[in-house]
Parts: sequence; C-alpha cells; structure tokens
Amino acid sequence: MTINSNKKATVSFESLLKIFTVPEGPESTLTQIESALSHNLNAFLNDHIVAEEKPLADIERDFAQAQIPDEPEFVSVHTDHLLEKVVAHSVHTASPHFIGHMTSALPYFLLPLAKVMTALNQNLVKIETSKAFTPLERQVLGMLHHLIYQRSDAFYAPLMHSASHSLGAFCSGGTVANITALWVARNHALPADGGFAGIAHSGLNAALRHYGYDDLAILVSERGHYSLKKAADVLGIGQNNVVTIPTDEHNRLDLAAFETTLTQLKQKNVCVFAVVGIAGTTETGNVDPLPAMAKICQRENIHFHVDAAWGGATLFSDTHRHLLRGIEQADSVTIDAHKQLYIPMGAGMVLFKNPSALQAIEHHAQYILRAGSKDLGSHTLEGSRSGIAMLVYSSLHILGRRGYQLLIDQSIQKAHFFARLISEQADFELVSKPELCLLTYRYVPHIAVKALAIATQEQQNKLNALLNELTIFMQKKQRENGRSFVSRTQLTPLRWSSYPIVVFRVVLANPLTTEDILRSVLDEQRHLAQQATSLLKMIEADCRAILDQS
Amino acid sequence: MTINSNKKATVSFESLLKIFTVPEGPESTLTQIESALSHNLNAFLNDHIVAEEKPLADIERDFAQAQIPDEPEFVSVHTDHLLEKVVAHSVHTASPHFIGHMTSALPYFLLPLAKVMTALNQNLVKIETSKAFTPLERQVLGMLHHLIYQRSDAFYAPLMHSASHSLGAFCSGGTVANITALWVARNHALPADGGFAGIAHSGLNAALRHYGYDDLAILVSERGHYSLKKAADVLGIGQNNVVTIPTDEHNRLDLAAFETTLTQLKQKNVCVFAVVGIAGTTETGNVDPLPAMAKICQRENIHFHVDAAWGGATLFSDTHRHLLRGIEQADSVTIDAHKQLYIPMGAGMVLFKNPSALQAIEHHAQYILRAGSKDLGSHTLEGSRSGIAMLVYSSLHILGRRGYQLLIDQSIQKAHFFARLISEQADFELVSKPELCLLTYRYVPHIAVKALAIATQEQQNKLNALLNELTIFMQKKQRENGRSFVSRTQLTPLRWSSYPIVVFRVVLANPLTTEDILRSVLDEQRHLAQQATSLLKMIEADCRAILDQS
Repeated sequence: MTINSNKKATVSFESLLKIFTVPEGPESTLTQIESALSHNLNAFLNDHIVAEEKPLADIERDFAQAQIPDEPEFVSVHTDHLLEKVVAHSVHTASPHFIGHMTSALPYFLLPLAKVMTALNQNLVKIETSKAFTPLERQVLGMLHHLIYQRSDAFYAPLMHSASHSLGAFCSGGTVANITALWVARNHALPADGGFAGIAHSGLNAALRHYGYDDLAILVSERGHYSLKKAADVLGIGQNNVVTIPTDEHNRLDLAAFETTLTQLKQKNVCVFAVVGIAGTTETGNVDPLPAMAKICQRENIHFHVDAAWGGATLFSDTHRHLLRGIEQADSVTIDAHKQLYIPMGAGMVLFKNPSALQAIEHHAQYILRAGSKDLGSHTLEGSRSGIAMLVYSSLHILGRRGYQLLIDQSIQKAHFFARLISEQADFELVSKPELCLLTYRYVPHIAVKALAIATQEQQNKLNALLNELTIFMQKKQRENGRSFVSRTQLTPLRWSSYPIVVFRVVLANPLTTEDILRSVLDEQRHLAQQATSLLKMIEADCRAILDQS
Repeated sequence: MTINSNKKATVSFESLLKIFTVPEGPESTLTQIESALSHNLNAFLNDHIVAEEKPLADIERDFAQAQIPDEPEFVSVHTDHLLEKVVAHSVHTASPHFIGHMTSALPYFLLPLAKVMTALNQNLVKIETSKAFTPLERQVLGMLHHLIYQRSDAFYAPLMHSASHSLGAFCSGGTVANITALWVARNHALPADGGFAGIAHSGLNAALRHYGYDDLAILVSERGHYSLKKAADVLGIGQNNVVTIPTDEHNRLDLAAFETTLTQLKQKNVCVFAVVGIAGTTETGNVDPLPAMAKICQRENIHFHVDAAWGGATLFSDTHRHLLRGIEQADSVTIDAHKQLYIPMGAGMVLFKNPSALQAIEHHAQYILRAGSKDLGSHTLEGSRSGIAMLVYSSLHILGRRGYQLLIDQSIQKAHFFARLISEQADFELVSKPELCLLTYRYVPHIAVKALAIATQEQQNKLNALLNELTIFMQKKQRENGRSFVSRTQLTPLRWSSYPIVVFRVVLANPLTTEDILRSVLDEQRHLAQQATSLLKMIEADCRAILDQS
C-alpha cells in the first residue's frame, strides 16, 4: 500500500483518504513484518536486530535532517528504511541474554492486544472518549490496591466506581507515580485552613508562611531512585531537601540514622511531609524496613510512600510476599506494570490507602472533568492517556495471580542460583546478594582477591579504582559485542570501607534466561577481561607490590 | 493458544514459558481479530462497538471485582470477554460522526507500525535500552523544532545529537509538555546565584527569599487549558497564581488588560515568570495575538510559552501557517502528535527555542543518565518511556509536509463549510466562528431567536438559562443514541452580555467526515430538540411573554 498507486508518491486529498481507509496489501512489506512478528517474534527480533553494536555517532548520521520532507514517501520504501536504520540498531530487550535492565520479554498475547488498544485509540482522560475503559482502569487500580492492602469486598464495593473516590492513579511510569504520591502528600501536609486556601491554590510560599514552617523535606535512603530528586525539584521542594539516610550493609535504610535526622529537621523547623520506603532498590533490589518506617511515620503523622515500582510484583507470590511486609501500612505505593508485570512500556500506577487522598490534587474544567463526573483525568497528573490499562487487565486475567507467582518465584530462584555461581568463582566477587531477582557483582582477578585481603586502606582504594576501570571497560565491551548485556552502577559497600565500587548489575526477570546463559555470561566476561591488557598489567603490578610487602 | 492445551487453564512454569514463546494459533479468536483489524479496521469498529450507549452503571457491574483471579484464564475465553465487555462499550473515536473531541481516525499504516513498536519494547530513558531510537527521537524533536523556528541546517547540525543540548522533550501528552515548559521557566527565573544553589536544588521558598519576591505568577487568557492550573499546583506556584486575562470577542487575550495586570503584579512584587499564549484554544480554537505577546515578554524578560498542543499542526500548511505568526518567538511550544498529527494516544512534545534551556531541569544518576551521556531521560519529566516517537517519525516521512498540509487545509475548509451551514439555519446559532477547525454553536428555536433579539437583560438571561438546559439535554441524548457525537462546553460571549452559554463544540479533524454527515448532525439535533417537550414549552411560554410585551 502506498499513498497512491503511481510509481512516485504524490499527494492528493483522495490519496490521503486512502491511507485512512485502505489497509496495507497482503504482499506489502509491512504486512509481512506484522505476520513475522505474529508468527515468531523471537526469530524476527533475532534476525533483524544486529548483534554487534554500531557506534552511536554512525547511527546519528542517519537521523541528521531537521527539515520535514516535503513530499510523501511510499509506505513500503519507508518500511525498508525502518528495518535497516531503526529496527536493526534497536536494543533486543526481549533477549534472554539481555539481563542488565528491568525490560524483559513479553507474553505473546500482548502483541495482538496492543494492536486492539491502538485501533480503539481511546483517551482515558474522560468517559466521553473511553466509556468502558474508565471502569476497566478503575478495576485494575482496585485489583492492585487489593494486592497491596487486602481490604474486604465490602470496602471495595462502594468505592471502586465512586465519582468522589480514587483507589489510585494510572500513569506513564514510576516517575510520574512517585511525583503524584509526593504531590498528594505535600498538598495534604499544607491544606486549606480557615482563611488560607491551601497550597494547591495559594502555592508553597504562602503555605509555609501560613503554617510557620521554615522549609519542607522528604526523607529516603541513599538508595532512593533518582526520580525522587526530580520530584522534589518539580514540586518546588528542591533536590537538596530530599534528605538521604545512610543504609546498612544490606542497602536498607538505617533506622537509627533515620530517627536522628527526623529529630534534627524538627529542631530546624522543617516539615518532613513524606518518607519514602523502597521495596526493591533500583541498584541492588533490597527492601527497606517497611514496618518500622511505617510505625515512625504514623507516630510523626508523616505521609509514608513506598516506591515498589519494580519490586511490587513480589506481592503476587505467596512464597516471597513476606519480603514486602509493612507495605500495607504505606499511605501510597508506586508499582510499574511495565516492569515485573510484563506489560509493554508506559504503564505505571500509584495506589493510595485512603480512597479520598487523591482529592488533594483534584482538577475540573468546563468541557471535561466536570465536578461529580467520573472522568479519570480529574485525579491524574497527565491529561490525555491511552488505554494501556487494558493490557494490565488482560494479563491479570490470563496469567492469574498464580501465573505471576510462578514468574516471581522463578526469577528469585534464578537470582539465588546466579549468586551461588558467582560466589563459586575464584575471580568474581558478589557485591550485593539478591533479596529479589537483582544482584551486583564484579570481576576481580584472582591475584587481586588475595592482595585486597591484606592491603592497607590506601592500597585498597588504589586497587579498587583500577578494578572500577576494568569493570567499566568490560561492561562497555560486552554491550558492544552484543552477545549479552549487563548494566553497571556504583555502590559504596562497607566491605570496601565505603569506597565507591563500580559493579555489574543484573536483573533476572526474563523467564527465558536459563542457567546455561548465566554460566556463559561469566565465561564471556572472564574472556573480555583479558582484552584489557594494560589495565590488567597495572592491577597485577599493584597486587605484586602489596603481596611482596607482606 | 492457551496457557496449556488442557481444557482447564492450569499453570506450570513450562506452560508459562509457552506464553512467552508460542504465538496464538491461526484459528484463535485473537489472531482472527488481528486479521480483521488489518483487513478492514473501520468495519471491525463499526461491527464491534455497540452504537447505543449502555448506562455507565451497568458497565461498571462488569468491572466490580477487586480480587485478582487466582487461576489463569484461556486467552480465547478472555478475548471473547474483551470483545463483549470492553470493545463493545468503548467509544468509536475513529468514526467520521464522532466530531466532539480531538481524537480522530488514524492512518492505516500506524497499526502495524505500532505493533512493531510494542514488539521492540524499547525504553527511551537511556541509550542502553533504546539505541537507534534515541537519535530517532532527537531527530523528530529537531523536525518539530524546525517546523516552528525554521532555523538553518547550520544551526541544527551541531545540536541535534549533542549530549549537552536538547531541542525539546518528548512526553506522554500536552499536560506533561506544559508542566515541563513551566518547570523550565520557573527554574530559569530563579537560578543559582552566588551562594544560592538555585530553585532546583534549594526549593521555591529559599528562592523567593534569595531574590526578594513575594510570590510567583503565570499569565494566560481565560481560555487557557486546565492543565496550566494543574501545572501551577504541581510546581508549587498555586492555582490562584495562574492569573487569567479577559479575552476579546474572538476569544483572544486582551492586550490592554494583559499590560494592566503585568503592571499590577509588578507593583505587588510578584515575579511573573511565564506568560502562556494559546495557539488553538481547547474550547473555541482561537489563536492569541502571539507577536504582541512575544514583544511584551521580551521587554519584560518573561518566558513566553505557547500552548499549541492542538493547533500547532497548522504550521504544516503554507495556506494557514500565518495564523500562528509569532509562535517562532516563543521560548517554548507544546505540540501533541496524538491530536492533529494523527498519531495514537500518548505522544506529546515540548520544543525550546534555546537548545540549552532544558539544562534547567537536568538530572543524573549513577546507573543511567550519567553526566555527559546522551540518555534522553536526563531532560524529561518522565523516566521510562516507549518508542512512540517512531510513529511520529514514520508519519512525517510517509505523509510528508505536503500530506499534513492537505489534512490541515481540508479540516479548516470543512469547519468553514459547517459554520456557513449553521448560520444558514433559522434555528441554530453559531457561537464561535472557526479560526482553525473548531467551532461552537447551539440550537435556538426560531421563536427564541426573535425573543432574544428584543428581550431585556434579565429576560435574556432567563431564556439563556433554559436554552442551556436544552443544549445539555440534546448533547446527552445525542451521545446516548450513538449515531453521532459532539462535545459541549460553556462560554461567556459578549453578544449575550457575558452570560454563561452552554454550547455544542465540534472539532473537524477527521478526514472521513463529509459535508453530508455535518448536514445529518444538524438534522439529528433538530429532531432531538423536539424530544425535550417540557423544556420547549417553557421556552415558548417565555418567548411569547417577551414578544407580546413588545
């Protein structure tokens, strides 16, 4: 199918109407691609995504033109171009060898369902452009609310579709979910009061003046997601007022330090309006001491938000649900469906314990979101939104709670296997143990293991700096070679006296990742390390010096 | 395809693996739906979406369960359920009779391309999960930047893929785009200065103290989109500090009132950090006097943002581009691709004249968005995002600028036709003339036209109140009958002494909407009005009284 049937694409209103009414022909490139995707997605991705990385600068040359082309292009010509320039150099996020980020393979049924969603092109900001999708999304929010808070049917029955209540808000992802939670918390802390109209109407400055605070703050462990600082900036709190609390050796918020900081801030007349607990840190996958944090927040009347964007899905598992104990006491919880719920990109949620909480950010307008309407847009940060809730709805039904439980259980099991495997190697160091399905490690040549064990602090730091360079070199090389992918981050383990250590970071959510693949990743990395010849020489020289001294 | 081949869906890890590796069979319901969508989308939507509206309360009963089902469900069973309960009661936004909102039919090629996008499941927050999609998105932003600002190739060449510059930010929609623009403006107005770290780091309160302002404000006409108040709330400015300026009889910001308000706010020591011009008001489709507003903003050193979420696509048309004159002087511009660029829901953009502007909201983290990286996430409000930019990229190439020009031209032409048609009727009143492809009108029985012409102010208001009820009745009935759809809003036309008038609101973007359809909409509405028997009697009685007096 082309804009019209002539050899050269030209444009007339009649030909334009065709692109809205006449589908691609059965022999067209695009129809064939669609069919290949439906027939064998993994084969299509393996065949069309080039493994070895093309340098970014080379790719950029294909996307250099700022002028919008004046003349139309044949769909078939453009499709070939997309295959060669875009698909070929995209990232194979569904590959079982791609274990570096939280993006995984998707269940097959989601592809046709996503097509249905696109074809329906609903806008969930209001009922007039979404109808059944509005109660559907509300039910999905209700189901996730139940997953966390486990309230009775009698609780949900009058609330699920109430115009004056919201069990949560759907959004594009965890960042918007976190911003929404903190926005609600901020507005609740500084509400209307007598002649004062509240922060939502009068602004932060007037609110602090009215309530007599010197400033606002959010508390979170040093492992908090970067979106919290972004949220603090957006919300007018300021990034520096995200006060970070040190963590223990398991990357969990240190409760004593938390209490001390709280006291200090109170003495400074700073209003701590939100505390964020993490259920699955982005870097290490650990869970904060949620019950103790909840208790302190209740005592201090502080909004307790839990960022479970990634880890929240653990609640599906009877086996591992206990790891998130205390989450049911949170005032709000972030969960991303595009992470461990295996939904395509763009599906985040924030749930609120109190079904009236979202009234703190309620908005109305004349043409939509009229007061009393059930338009979802009156309680979301975003306006127009797609019907992606349908994909969550379908997955919750087709997989069922037990299906998700199996996925979670096998992910965590696989992470424990990989942790054992790493620990068994003489030349790898497990840096953070998996609590959920995430772990970090690094490559340490055997001689360096021995040298580090007896080195002075200064020698350790020097050696660790070299090892950091080695880790960065290996991670980049591994990505460029395209056989497998792990990500990297920087941690400050107590074992190395809080010196910043660069580590490989692995997320084992893809059900297609096998134990053999994990073995091959270590083999490949060991092999890659050998390519860093000059770095290895420097490391060896340093180690010899340390070992010779002793 | 089912989770496994037994009659009852059960769950084992092997059966779960299948849903990640084995596609739906060719005879499955889901495959057949997909094929129907590909073969004839319009027929599928016409066949499967029930025209007559089911009451929302009835629909809600189908989405009442908060418990996530424990056991899995067969894909085929679930698909039938979706067809019956969700698709059937969704909104036929692609229908040429659906002319009430900004959602329209989509070009056919976008369906298979959306499937490719879903299958690739890229995450554009960082290059490691998006690779070629990162330069692709940057190019799309560059193309939209060029559409607005028309800078030379020499301008774009060094900037398009520069790690330290951004021509704009992609986001889920116009609301996030507007928030991003105002966030940047706010942070630019209160930057780091000597010992002060800037509002981004130290927060709004410290910033006002440092700069000695009493408060902040945003100025926009009374026709501004509701997202601006939401933005002001989020950003800590407060909704009341969105100061609205009256409009003239064409719904355009009144410049004299604008100057007066600016002076008053300065006298009150309020920092007006942003002025928002509207290029296509949501309710009436009018364009503010952008050149004059830009000039005043330059003089006062205020960030000038243009909300062209809907109207921005007018720039594609050589014929109508002049209507947005002055937009090229804006510091930032919002454009939604899911409106007049005919992209599925979820594609917004904000462009910045100054390619360094987005540095005001730059964010970094250890594991992604490292300083100096080209990760898109360091300059967006959202974190994880889909690769929907690919659909914009493809449409810009396949339609070309001239294709979009034709779409815009025919939309505006159709709006002018409809306006003429309405004016020719004895019993319809055109309330706002179309400047772009949006107009408002109402039904006024012939006798009321005559009565209003001679009524006193009080009599006019009383009659208009009844006519408002009639308009609301008609709009609801029309929606329920499901043959066609117009939206409604409330305006305060000078003609009716600024009394609030409820009007039908029509957006004529769907290229499949014909003149005959527009004629049939008026016929249907005239017919619907007759069903409001008691209202019509009251209107007639009032009119008789007025006419008898004279």
